[in-house]
Amino acid sequence: MTRLEKIKYKPVPVRDLLIEMKDLSELMIDLAYSAALFNSQPLAEEVVELEKRVDNLAYLLDMSAMLAARDARDAESLVGVTVVAAATDKISDAAADMAAIVLRGIGVHPIVLEAFKKMEEQLTKVETKPNSVLVGKRLGELQLAAKMGVDIIAIRRDKELTINPKEDETIKKGDIITARGAPSGIEEFEKLAEGIVQTLES
Amino acid sequence: MTRLEKIKYKPVPVRDLLIEMKDLSELMIDLAYSAALFNSQPLAEEVVELEKRVDNLAYLLDMSAMLAARDARDAESLVGVTVVAAATDKISDAAADMAAIVLRGIGVHPIVLEAFKKMEEQLTKVETKPNSVLVGKRLGELQLAAKMGVDIIAIRRDKELTINPKEDETIKKGDIITARGAPSGIEEFEKLAEGIVQTLES
Repeated sequence: MTRLEKIKYKPVPVRDLLIEMKDLSELMIDLAYSAALFNSQPLAEEVVELEKRVDNLAYLLDMSAMLAARDARDAESLVGVTVVAAATDKISDAAADMAAIVLRGIGVHPIVLEAFKKMEEQLTKVETKPNSVLVGKRLGELQLAAKMGVDIIAIRRDKELTINPKEDETIKKGDIITARGAPSGIEEFEKLAEGIVQTLES
Repeated sequence: MTRLEKIKYKPVPVRDLLIEMKDLSELMIDLAYSAALFNSQPLAEEVVELEKRVDNLAYLLDMSAMLAARDARDAESLVGVTVVAAATDKISDAAADMAAIVLRGIGVHPIVLEAFKKMEEQLTKVETKPNSVLVGKRLGELQLAAKMGVDIIAIRRDKELTINPKEDETIKKGDIITARGAPSGIEEFEKLAEGIVQTLES
């Protein structure tokens, strides 16, 4: 069994915790569908990683809610927040269950492929190679959305994960990037990240 | 406690069951967010109704999978389908948990509103009045998407629920319609359904 991180209370606003949990749970569902559709081990692993993060956030949120409630009225009002947080946690669990099909090598049944194929957008998880033209560029100057219809939705650098990175974020070599877009754009983006294509059309 | 329907096996293709479960679970999450955001009792009730339907579909799917498996290889391959179905069921449970906040009158905490307000689209559930201009029209001729950016995502008529109704579906008086769109379009659509506005701009 994997040893899990000890959860220690950190003063993070409940609001920030909830927004991150909601964003992550939605991202995880999309990732899990994509993982199943393309039988992608890296995407499935990302879902499992994110699930641990959502679990941690859920613990932190519960602790913060306990500390914030000074009287019965506070508690009544905050219970609505913890219920929503628990629901996003449940959604992230469901995504991890789906990812497990890929990780356990159960294989994706044609029926599942059919149910999922309606997705117009594809997701990818790719590591930037040192010779990639993306390295050293800010997201704002790359304009990937305008140029190839690709959105970068997460960057993992060392142990840090940034969801919805900002325009001024600079891509570094070795960044693990999760991106979403039309299949043709995703293919182009992967080649750029892997240094196979060296020119970024403008 | 509400008496639940007895589940009786019906020969429905597993594929159809899974696709409906997936579509419903996604719709329910959107409905639950909208229910919370607008503190809407009708939308929250719709989520609870749909949850019962997903539960029924989950039972039927499990039964169908059991009947379809003739040997160990079939069973190994079908387990991937039942896991995905169980995951969509879990997602629908999470949506129902969120809807319960509205139905129990817990009230929606400002933090939750903030986490949900990013939604650009709004959902509504409205009953068509006998004097509505929509009554007797086919969806195809109404062109609600082109005219006001509104998509009809479900029609409940008596006990029948049609998800993603087709172009040739004719609206009847007393239909309970769930629709999605930009807030201004949704407002216009509600007035048309309620017979308050009698002209459909072309």
